[in-house]
Amino acid sequence: MKQKFKIIAFDADDTLWVNEPFYRETEEKFFNLLQDFGNKETLNNELFKTEMQNLTLYGYGAKGLTLSMTETALRVSNNQVKPATIQSIIDLGKALIQKPLVLLDGVEEVLKTLYQKEALLIVVTKGDLLDQERKLTNSGLKQYFHHVEILSNKKEENYLQLLKKLNVQPEDFLMIGNSRKSDIIPVVNIGAYAIFVPYHTSWQHEEADKVESPNCLEATSLTEVLNILNTR
Amino acid sequence: MKQKFKIIAFDADDTLWVNEPFYRETEEKFFNLLQDFGNKETLNNELFKTEMQNLTLYGYGAKGLTLSMTETALRVSNNQVKPATIQSIIDLGKALIQKPLVLLDGVEEVLKTLYQKEALLIVVTKGDLLDQERKLTNSGLKQYFHHVEILSNKKEENYLQLLKKLNVQPEDFLMIGNSRKSDIIPVVNIGAYAIFVPYHTSWQHEEADKVESPNCLEATSLTEVLNILNTR
Repeated sequence: MKQKFKIIAFDADDTLWVNEPFYRETEEKFFNLLQDFGNKETLNNELFKTEMQNLTLYGYGAKGLTLSMTETALRVSNNQVKPATIQSIIDLGKALIQKPLVLLDGVEEVLKTLYQKEALLIVVTKGDLLDQERKLTNSGLKQYFHHVEILSNKKEENYLQLLKKLNVQPEDFLMIGNSRKSDIIPVVNIGAYAIFVPYHTSWQHEEADKVESPNCLEATSLTEVLNILNTR
Repeated sequence: MKQKFKIIAFDADDTLWVNEPFYRETEEKFFNLLQDFGNKETLNNELFKTEMQNLTLYGYGAKGLTLSMTETALRVSNNQVKPATIQSIIDLGKALIQKPLVLLDGVEEVLKTLYQKEALLIVVTKGDLLDQERKLTNSGLKQYFHHVEILSNKKEENYLQLLKKLNVQPEDFLMIGNSRKSDIIPVVNIGAYAIFVPYHTSWQHEEADKVESPNCLEATSLTEVLNILNTR
């Protein structure tokens, strides 16, 4: 793989810090709140259905999840859910937004090393701008990044728009992330480069098959990125 | 006022298109839904209180308003609100997100004229990225703008970060918008330029007094911006 890039972009959630396990924990608590109205599997299916129906309206992030959980509770209970339970759902969403920041292994070492090279480091994430800025501030990693870019989605058109905005050519752009669907496939498809760093937990909406391309490598851990880029 | 800028930034809601009246209409419907639990004035005060309490968690936009309306309904009714009413509140929020795009007077003329000059035009807004991208697409104005920048807030630090990201000096940056608090005062305070174009309806959270500075002018309409910049 090519080793020099003008911009190295990192996905945030589950690439730099823990996210998906907090979402899973929130959903488990939601299923417990609603156990009178369905078992875990049914509730999980109903919640996912609601989230997919609302995705074009709400986009990604904790506020959309909170609204979708509320709507699911009303539907599966046939409006029999107690108002106090709705407040508990809102509180689950607020607790999710305020989860502590937990860095993933090797993040600081990798950023510190790459920061000393010539590439500009940025964060490229979908989700809620306010949430991501808060996480970045709490992470203590802000110093390494030139800035944060929030995309409403991570499809080819979004990356093309991003490269135009950054005034950078695809061959000078490397994306590092934990979602093949969002961080790897669309990036490779526009002629840029990508390194996949898997995380043990992922949302079913993000799952995709391995991609074969000379522009893409799969690492087993974030620190392996340093070997790939030959910067150790 | 200086007449040449490298970047001319437009606020979006109530500068380019109608927004606040749709929020007011949504709130009126919310007050009607809850009329058994308080008069309009009380409900308005309670909603604003909830929104201010949630602002650091939720930020700006329709999803945060929907969650704050839900929480207010639970509180003012002492959990006596019907679950079906909660669904109606969620539906109000979805309808708000899907309001038709209504351009303000003179917008197209102003953008078309300024687009032919040397400055780069961008949209700088707070609120929800997905909502603002949807509005820009529906507006038919996308062709005039280089890109959209979403800020989690419009304070001095946010503008400083933006100028760094855009690699532009304050004296080369002009902001045009309808909120003195968000679009004018912080911009002038960092040494950049601003033109205030008032709109007849504004959220109480956005109100601020007139600012006196050689870097700032107040227009009576958007088309007056062309006179100010001497581009007619």
